[in-house]
Parts: sequence; C-alpha cells; structure tokens
Amino acid sequence: MPKKLIIASTSTIHGSGYLEYLLPELEILFEKVKTIVFIPYARPGGISHDQYTEIASKAFKKIDKKIIGVHTYENPTEAIENAEGIFTGGGNTFVLVNQLYKTNVLPILRKKIFEGTPYLGTSAGSNICGLTMQTTNDMPIIYPPSFKTIGALPFNINPHYLDPIEGSTHMGETREMRIKEFHVHNTLPVVGLREGSWLDVQDQIIQLKGNPTARIFEKDKTPYEIKEGSRIDF
Amino acid sequence: MPKKLIIASTSTIHGSGYLEYLLPELEILFEKVKTIVFIPYARPGGISHDQYTEIASKAFKKIDKKIIGVHTYENPTEAIENAEGIFTGGGNTFVLVNQLYKTNVLPILRKKIFEGTPYLGTSAGSNICGLTMQTTNDMPIIYPPSFKTIGALPFNINPHYLDPIEGSTHMGETREMRIKEFHVHNTLPVVGLREGSWLDVQDQIIQLKGNPTARIFEKDKTPYEIKEGSRIDF
Repeated sequence: MPKKLIIASTSTIHGSGYLEYLLPELEILFEKVKTIVFIPYARPGGISHDQYTEIASKAFKKIDKKIIGVHTYENPTEAIENAEGIFTGGGNTFVLVNQLYKTNVLPILRKKIFEGTPYLGTSAGSNICGLTMQTTNDMPIIYPPSFKTIGALPFNINPHYLDPIEGSTHMGETREMRIKEFHVHNTLPVVGLREGSWLDVQDQIIQLKGNPTARIFEKDKTPYEIKEGSRIDF
Repeated sequence: MPKKLIIASTSTIHGSGYLEYLLPELEILFEKVKTIVFIPYARPGGISHDQYTEIASKAFKKIDKKIIGVHTYENPTEAIENAEGIFTGGGNTFVLVNQLYKTNVLPILRKKIFEGTPYLGTSAGSNICGLTMQTTNDMPIIYPPSFKTIGALPFNINPHYLDPIEGSTHMGETREMRIKEFHVHNTLPVVGLREGSWLDVQDQIIQLKGNPTARIFEKDKTPYEIKEGSRIDF
C-alpha cells in the first residue's frame, strides 16, 4: 500500500476550533478507518496524555472516528502495530521524540507509515515525519537519545513557519536565520510550512495544500516560495 | 577571588553597535585585564570563528582590550586556563555547547569562572552560565553530548525574552508557554532576560541591571517581574 499522510503546520488556525480547517481532508484520509490511535506524547502546555486525548476525541467525533490514546495500551508498540490509522498531535518535539524512543514506538511507527497506514501529523507530529527533528522551534526541555526521526519525507519540516516581523526591534534570530544556521552544519532541505498549509503525501507524491505558500530552504540557495498544488521533489 | 560575571540577554540592542550599550560596564569588569580570550564557538548566522573574533575585537578596541580567539590556540583548554578574562559570544547554543564538550573546554571554563576570572556572556554565552541550556530559544541544529552547562548561576537563563505579541494570530507557543512546559519536566527557576538587561554577578550577589524588568519563572508559581537593582536569590 502506498504511503498516505497529511503533515500539517498546525492543528488549529486562528479563530477556528481544533483541527476544524482540516476535517474535510481528514474524512478522505481516514475514509476506511473507524478507530485512530492517537499519540499524545508531545503534551502541549504540559497537559496530561488523557486530557490531550480528550481534545483529539472531540474533534474526530465530528467525522465519526473513534480516538484511542496509545498511552492507554499496556503495550504501545503493539497498539501502533495494530492501528488502522494514526494521529500524532503537536506540543513539544523533544518530549515527543524522547517518549517515542523510550517506548520503542518510533521504528514501528515508521514501518506502519511506510506500509500505508493513514497518518496525520500536526506541528510536532509533523516535525517527526522529517529525517530529523533539528528544525523544530521547540525548547529542549528534555534530552532525547537522538534527534533522528521517522524520515517519511526526504527532507525536514519547520512547522508554524514565521516571516520576519516588519519593523521589529527584537535582536533575536529570525526563523530564516535559524534555518540558515542549520544549513551550515546540515545538508537536508527544509520546508517552512506556514499555519494553514499542509503536505499531502500519496506514496512518492508530496504536494503542498492550503492557502499560504510554503518557503523552501536548500543549502547554498536563496530561499524560495512554492504555491498550493506544487509538488515537492528535490 | 569572588566570581565576577556579566550575563547579558543580547550583545546588541536595536539601533546601537555591537556591545556598545555595555562598554561602560565592561570597562569595570575587565579593569585589570589587558587580553580577553574570546570563545566564538556559537557562530551566529554561521560565520567563521575568525570573522566572529574580528567583530568582538573591534568592539573591545574601544576600551583598549585585546581579543584573542580561543580557536587560534593549539590547546584551547590551556588558553582558557591561562586567560585573564573571558568572553563567550552569542549565536547557536547547541553549536556552542557541542564545541565546548568536544574541546573539553567546559570544565576548565567552569573552574576559571569560579576562581574569579572576569567573564562576559551574551545570549548563548549567557545561556551556558545556567545549570542547563534547556531554556535556549535556538534550533537544535547539532546534537550535543549533554544539555548540562556551567552552572555559574543556580538557575537557568532565557535570553532575548519576548512578551506575547498583542493581537497576534500566530498559533505557535509563546515564550511563556514554552517555559511553562519546561517546568512540567524540570524544577529549576528561569530568569527571562529582556534585551537591554543583564545580570551582574559579584560572588554570591546576583543583581539585575539595565532598563527592562526581567520575568521570573518558578515551578508552580505565577511568573513575576523584577526591576533593575533587584537581587536574585531563590
């Protein structure tokens, strides 16, 4: 079965409910799926796995899907192994990746995605679809055993991509400068996904969807924009 | 000899030259020092150690101090061991910490600071004065052997502290939320240093200096502000 993923910059766009803008897409992605295993490990704002699963459940109820948190299974690798569909929510990427290693879920998750199990990632859950988590925006609040992630994509993701704020007097690095620094030490391309856009992956075809353009960063090249419908193929 | 450090949020404030706003303080800190060993490992924007050292040299020339890059010595630990004064510049904290471990400079740097060698840190160079680098804003573009840092302070630093932007529609985490997530997994207090402020450390006395107030985050407490002249003593 070909890979099937939606890799979204954010779960929520301003002024809209959790996952609301994505529901029509999710109906298609999870068309043949009744129950989705949810990975709540990223714990946004530090909320518990149960609280987070509750939030995801409410959203998916609207399209008649049942959500079960992977943390409720005695054996999380088995839960992923048997999943019909998988959703990894956003939060802190370091916390997420650490827990994926600790539970040994990471290799099984990778195998399942490559076998064609429909997968939704938002924010941190999208970040882990890249080859490494090294273009996350999150704080390193936990030291994970490695920065290597799933590699469902042949590049890295920068979710919640932010343009420099015009007229800002802040001297901290812009997002673009941070990614430029990444390319001093790494060669992987980076896709800066603005909020409201996502990657639609159907086997080898990776397409940008949603209104905002995406910003592409390749080592030693000037960054450039791509539009909705563009294929990403380095 | 008592510890003597200036731990600044930023090297540069908007509309001013590199280190310019700090020069009067640096004249006092480095009063008895002719030559300062500069640690350029954080490579802001990916510039080379030589280029970075050149920038630091120009600024310190204004107060008649000579700067030598630690990378120009065959033995960097010996260079730090013999230093009269030390300055670690900003850039990427992961790159800086990785190089400090790789060169074995970290323990010697710690020893020297505790022996009273005058030390200036800006941004990433301030971050490493905390117990861990886990409240950096930087991208994890390199995987360092550990997140543990110098511990010249009994807490962590968040440099370039940023308040939430009013009316922002961006859904990425605010700085405050990131630090709140840090406190789900860690107990260390965090000092959010806004640009233009710094900590003045004289042995056990840690004082906030500069115009902006600083924001203090303690686990399970509401964050609060402290003013210039306040002593930090948890």
